[in-house]
Amino acid sequence: MNPSVIREILKLTEQPGIVSLAGGLPAPETFPVEAMRVAADRVLRDSPHEALQYAASEGYAPLREWVAGDLAAHGLQVDAAQVLITTGSQQGLDLVAKALVDPGSRVAVESPTYLGALQAFAPCEPEFTPVECDGDGPMPEALRRDAAGARFFYVLPNFQNPSGRSIGAARRDEIVRTAEAIGLPIVEDNPYGELWFEAPPPAPIAARWREGTIYLGSFSKVLAPGLRLGYVVAPEAVFAKLLQAKQAADLHTPGFNQRVVHEVIRDGFLREHVPTIRVRYKAQRDAMQASLLAHLATSGPHACRWTVPGGGMFFWLELPPGIDAEALLPRAIERGVAFVPGAPFFAGAPQANTLRLSFVTVSPEAIERGVRALAAALETMR
Amino acid sequence: MNPSVIREILKLTEQPGIVSLAGGLPAPETFPVEAMRVAADRVLRDSPHEALQYAASEGYAPLREWVAGDLAAHGLQVDAAQVLITTGSQQGLDLVAKALVDPGSRVAVESPTYLGALQAFAPCEPEFTPVECDGDGPMPEALRRDAAGARFFYVLPNFQNPSGRSIGAARRDEIVRTAEAIGLPIVEDNPYGELWFEAPPPAPIAARWREGTIYLGSFSKVLAPGLRLGYVVAPEAVFAKLLQAKQAADLHTPGFNQRVVHEVIRDGFLREHVPTIRVRYKAQRDAMQASLLAHLATSGPHACRWTVPGGGMFFWLELPPGIDAEALLPRAIERGVAFVPGAPFFAGAPQANTLRLSFVTVSPEAIERGVRALAAALETMR
Repeated sequence: MNPSVIREILKLTEQPGIVSLAGGLPAPETFPVEAMRVAADRVLRDSPHEALQYAASEGYAPLREWVAGDLAAHGLQVDAAQVLITTGSQQGLDLVAKALVDPGSRVAVESPTYLGALQAFAPCEPEFTPVECDGDGPMPEALRRDAAGARFFYVLPNFQNPSGRSIGAARRDEIVRTAEAIGLPIVEDNPYGELWFEAPPPAPIAARWREGTIYLGSFSKVLAPGLRLGYVVAPEAVFAKLLQAKQAADLHTPGFNQRVVHEVIRDGFLREHVPTIRVRYKAQRDAMQASLLAHLATSGPHACRWTVPGGGMFFWLELPPGIDAEALLPRAIERGVAFVPGAPFFAGAPQANTLRLSFVTVSPEAIERGVRALAAALETMR
Repeated sequence: MNPSVIREILKLTEQPGIVSLAGGLPAPETFPVEAMRVAADRVLRDSPHEALQYAASEGYAPLREWVAGDLAAHGLQVDAAQVLITTGSQQGLDLVAKALVDPGSRVAVESPTYLGALQAFAPCEPEFTPVECDGDGPMPEALRRDAAGARFFYVLPNFQNPSGRSIGAARRDEIVRTAEAIGLPIVEDNPYGELWFEAPPPAPIAARWREGTIYLGSFSKVLAPGLRLGYVVAPEAVFAKLLQAKQAADLHTPGFNQRVVHEVIRDGFLREHVPTIRVRYKAQRDAMQASLLAHLATSGPHACRWTVPGGGMFFWLELPPGIDAEALLPRAIERGVAFVPGAPFFAGAPQANTLRLSFVTVSPEAIERGVRALAAALETMR
């Protein structure tokens, strides 16, 4: 089953009556609609011609300044001149591949890794090198052994999609030491870092190795994804290549959207807004954990395994050995729940008994119903 | 001098006192700001969650329907399912290259051709095959001779950027017959077709050869470029590849922007609006033609040559033989006028004595001043 087949199956699950734990969407109740409306109105009153005209490929200067300031507050000192605004951080991945990948060159990725990154890199025809991971993330000895000579190592350190896993401070340092030793640039993707529930994540990898790391950020999870706004921060030499690729890809990210978002966030809006998202998502996370414990916490050889994610949007479930999540999917849909099988997230040999559950767009009641249905479907596979 | 060097030079020309005929920007006075403001407000009141959430990679269904209807009115019958909304038509070029080009494969282009297309195709590393053109556009015998075996022929039939040239109906038919005979797909780019001054252009190439043509359109020149909205229309087999590339490139074009534009245009707004742009641009075109006649219409061996464009945004000036437009540029800037030298628009051997003049963003008085300065600069080269 390839990703587009799964996409088709999941389209079927949009019908009423199905609890979809398959989505990767943020909860729309968190979108600051009124602030957007006021900002859009102001932008079109105050600077309509600038907002609607062609604009610089680099992005809107005040927004680049804002990003630099925000990253500094997170321990990453960068100049606004290193910030490239992109059409969602998905586009950042496309540009990185164009700047750094040639057909047949190697790209190292976590195992599992974000499927959208594999898709973004694919047109440049790299060979993927999966890097073995444990509960703390990518293993430095695996990185040293398998990733030397790759163009870069793509890593999502905070509440990873799909695994929910985070990389601790010590492991980040080890990864940097190893990458530096073998001359392996790092591409650090951080869409979920602000969505922490108990404690903020450690400083980014880019803060530990500025000259060797390309950093990607996004407004999709803290404001709204439908505006398609992200950014890439890169050392000077790479920045020039990314900028050239950006210009060729879509000339620039919509200036109207950049100005609207800057208008919304310029006076500290996110300091009030993001905590409300954290509270909401934490409650959902807790609900899913409770349902999983209630219905899937058998012990012994039939046990499912998972780790409670400290933030983000996803649980990653390991089914009992020998149970294929793709085979489970149609039975689960029959019983009224959808999920995403884990296999497509592996660049190398897939771990077929894994699946991803999203907890952010479904009510606690629906989560309970969905997890119960999942347990019932699983029962039929035994 | 490569395109980015020219870009740097042209940045210097943004200072006051310089008449820039170098731009490729539409006139901001044509942007329907009030209609946008009302539409943005309505979208954020009526469907904020849908507008701000992740959305389908194909685009917003009602906008795709609108595009299909509009194309039908222009003689091109397509199903809305063949319409892919893109982040500006520049992105359409990026997706076409990803779907159809491999490193070393050949892409045939007009001579000269749109520089942004060369840049969009470049990351896929094609070899460009320039196709010889005359005053009516690409010459069918040159196409047959040089373009056989190319992945596609990229052509901009209406008021081409940079040459201002249009392809007549008979020549379109000849091009289609030739392309069909040698099995050469056509990529037809039409950003300027609506900006006609005397008579609408003939039916698109895609209407003459639907199964062999990919068609690109844009809202940048009839509404505003800062929203980054364009579209690609493609036969089914290619559509699937374009869609996959689109998803990998930026997931989808901002849904908010798609809904705002649909809200603006749904009830026939463009039928009233576009004629006002035509009137404005025609007056500018006439002013530039008058200034060119007044200052550059010497006859004999020192003559400049040009054709009056029937629409669009550009004059293409052929300087006397042996005069290099890139050498002329610094002297022109000294005298207070900027233009874009023609050489970068050639995929093959450049015609160094050519340059492009934009007439849409500068007042008739400034056009007169600019053309006079250009003539004075040219005088120093003789």
